[in-house]
Amino acid sequence: MASLNHELVESDALGLLERLCREPSVSAEGRALDTTAALVEELLADTGFATRQLQVDDAPPAVYGEQRGRSAYTLLLYNHYDVQPVDPLELWDSPPFELTRRDGKVYARGTADNKGELAVRLAVIRALLEESGELPCTIRWIVEGEEEIGSPHFDEIVRQNIEALRADACLWEGSPARLTDGRPSIGLGFKGVLAVRLNVRLLASDAHSSVAAVAESAAWRLVQALASLRDASGRVRITGFYDTVRAPTDAERQAIAEMSDATEEDLRESLGIDEFIDGLNGAELRERAAFAPTCNIAGFRSGYSGPGMKTVLPAEASAWLDFRLVPDQTAADTLDLLRAHLRIEGFEDVEVNALASAEAAGTSIHDPFVEQVRRVAEETAGRPASVAPRIGATLPIIASLDRHLGVPGVAPPDNPFYFGANAHAPNEHIRLDDLRPAIAFTEALLEALGDGV
Amino acid sequence: MASLNHELVESDALGLLERLCREPSVSAEGRALDTTAALVEELLADTGFATRQLQVDDAPPAVYGEQRGRSAYTLLLYNHYDVQPVDPLELWDSPPFELTRRDGKVYARGTADNKGELAVRLAVIRALLEESGELPCTIRWIVEGEEEIGSPHFDEIVRQNIEALRADACLWEGSPARLTDGRPSIGLGFKGVLAVRLNVRLLASDAHSSVAAVAESAAWRLVQALASLRDASGRVRITGFYDTVRAPTDAERQAIAEMSDATEEDLRESLGIDEFIDGLNGAELRERAAFAPTCNIAGFRSGYSGPGMKTVLPAEASAWLDFRLVPDQTAADTLDLLRAHLRIEGFEDVEVNALASAEAAGTSIHDPFVEQVRRVAEETAGRPASVAPRIGATLPIIASLDRHLGVPGVAPPDNPFYFGANAHAPNEHIRLDDLRPAIAFTEALLEALGDGV
Repeated sequence: MASLNHELVESDALGLLERLCREPSVSAEGRALDTTAALVEELLADTGFATRQLQVDDAPPAVYGEQRGRSAYTLLLYNHYDVQPVDPLELWDSPPFELTRRDGKVYARGTADNKGELAVRLAVIRALLEESGELPCTIRWIVEGEEEIGSPHFDEIVRQNIEALRADACLWEGSPARLTDGRPSIGLGFKGVLAVRLNVRLLASDAHSSVAAVAESAAWRLVQALASLRDASGRVRITGFYDTVRAPTDAERQAIAEMSDATEEDLRESLGIDEFIDGLNGAELRERAAFAPTCNIAGFRSGYSGPGMKTVLPAEASAWLDFRLVPDQTAADTLDLLRAHLRIEGFEDVEVNALASAEAAGTSIHDPFVEQVRRVAEETAGRPASVAPRIGATLPIIASLDRHLGVPGVAPPDNPFYFGANAHAPNEHIRLDDLRPAIAFTEALLEALGDGV
Repeated sequence: MASLNHELVESDALGLLERLCREPSVSAEGRALDTTAALVEELLADTGFATRQLQVDDAPPAVYGEQRGRSAYTLLLYNHYDVQPVDPLELWDSPPFELTRRDGKVYARGTADNKGELAVRLAVIRALLEESGELPCTIRWIVEGEEEIGSPHFDEIVRQNIEALRADACLWEGSPARLTDGRPSIGLGFKGVLAVRLNVRLLASDAHSSVAAVAESAAWRLVQALASLRDASGRVRITGFYDTVRAPTDAERQAIAEMSDATEEDLRESLGIDEFIDGLNGAELRERAAFAPTCNIAGFRSGYSGPGMKTVLPAEASAWLDFRLVPDQTAADTLDLLRAHLRIEGFEDVEVNALASAEAAGTSIHDPFVEQVRRVAEETAGRPASVAPRIGATLPIIASLDRHLGVPGVAPPDNPFYFGANAHAPNEHIRLDDLRPAIAFTEALLEALGDGV
């Protein structure tokens, strides 16, 4: 095993992160995607990767790099260079595209999701090359620019580049390198997602609200349609929604039971809440988070919502929903069930537009690569790993990697991220103390894969 | 009876309207209120009124003017110089504060509500003075600047100026001078209103929507609270809401039956709808519009509502409601009932903020002034008047005039307004053909009051 100077690697990672965060690569707004792709390609090329941009129509480029190592083992890395929008801007305490250090943290959009991990991986690779001139194993790396809008072109990119992307195993976007109790965290699968916009338009334009006595209201229709989707306990009322949900296996339940409970308090604090749904805690809370599908209102809007009051009957009302799906629910079936529900409940006037979708996907808890990553993580951290059979978020790329490459993967503990990081929210940040464990794991795993351990 | 040159009066009214509409007097945004008040005072003073501004703390000035006439009869006129906000600005086909003539109409914010009527009244008065040197009767005139935000200080203004405002009768903001079938329209009362903002805040900030599996959602809570307020048929579910609703009298029902049905098609066209609620039409539709209280969603907002999708669990959700109230519902009771409903239904986490309120008020259909106005209107138009015992909108000032002055009033047929005028909406306008009937009625009524007819 090499032993890098982790202080220097950390310093390099922060320098890289500063450059990456300066790019306002908001995929939802199509901002700075070409320039950020060019920066990522330049960084990979400077590190000895043979690079190119993987292009498909209407998509920002994905950056690809390949570098041979001393062993035949080939590891695929996945990251994304795009970030979430920054609004509401006024809630940020420092500029969102300027890496700002305070109180042991660094703040900027993308630090936690996912430029921080990209910087850690690159800094470790640069240090390994500096020290020994070659990588322990062959690395193929794909860094895409549409993750935050659901990776709509990633499947096509993989389909067109199967030979370039083939690998023995894959490191997806990672899990926290260090939970609050010091345990490394490993994720084996993600939920799917179906995002839709519901829309009701009943009038030519907003009208004086006195008309509400005699004309139908788009706002009321949408409220009633939304209310029909869940009962008071939060259970989704769409007929058939739960029919295909696969129960967790004994091994998955066991893993859930053995997971760290440190994230519970982190999450509670970051949300500013006293209690989770139904007063859940511990393994029950983790099981709900991992295995329960959701029907979430990401936003809604109708009529007047400014200062004071404007008494209008709104012409139109819209809601943005996302369903997080578990095996064996599919996005297409869920969309059909939603449409059927609205039809049966008499909401033919509610238009449904599918915005994005991705299937639930993951790696079996019994896969040998899972065991290999767990062993390295536990040796590096000196503590038992916290293995999540399924994570509540969605990584649409996993279903594509599985479908076209059949490559086993994990969300490894190399992400300087924690559950209070405000990913997708104002004041996104990472804790500086999480960089070293991420660096140590990355170094150790690459060496282990090179050694065939 | 004098007989003015109505072509000249119309031309003068349009010139006045152009000046008035140039002022962006949006009370909800506190825009240009002092300058508009100064303009109105200047116009009244130039017309021979003894003027002053009626000031109370935190309110834009109301303009007051008085001018003696040849008879002792004293008529009080009420108008307002403020207008509704203009958003969404992009839906206007011409600048909202620039009087623009096209296709027999003039467009600008305030043309229909209420600067057009102010201009007509002033132009007639100027012409009468020009012709005979004095007014037929004494006129007292109050023009306030907060009608579009619910006249929050009007009651205090009246209370402080009771002697100045005393009169034998009052012309409120008026009804259409000419319905599509040529009948003049008279309104005898308005609904009350209670405007509230409902607010739910459950998280410190918006979170990643994966958290929706385990944390309560402000958006869902608000949807459920809203859904609890009405049943599928649109009936308000708040216990006690309908208890005090007074049934229309036989005379009121008779008036409803005899009203013009021309506004039905105007309203249908302006709303762009095929059918009203429950397929209503004719007298049933008019009765519902006049006597049914409403619970309207003027707007709601939560989370993300931009292009594409942002998968967040929103921290907060808000809705703006207005209840249109009929005799003998009161705003205070309705607020209490709403709060009790939310408490009983388990929505203690839904905060209720009262934004504005006004009581239903009006003049008895048997009052002699009503008969006087009706007779003049029918003589001028040569057609039966359409008398609305109650109008679905709210004119908060009427309850104050009634409480402090006890003065009978009507919404007379002197308003160049029709039900397709887009009051409160983009492309507000009036039809040029509606100016002459308004002018003719105003002239005839003032002469009749001066003659003691």
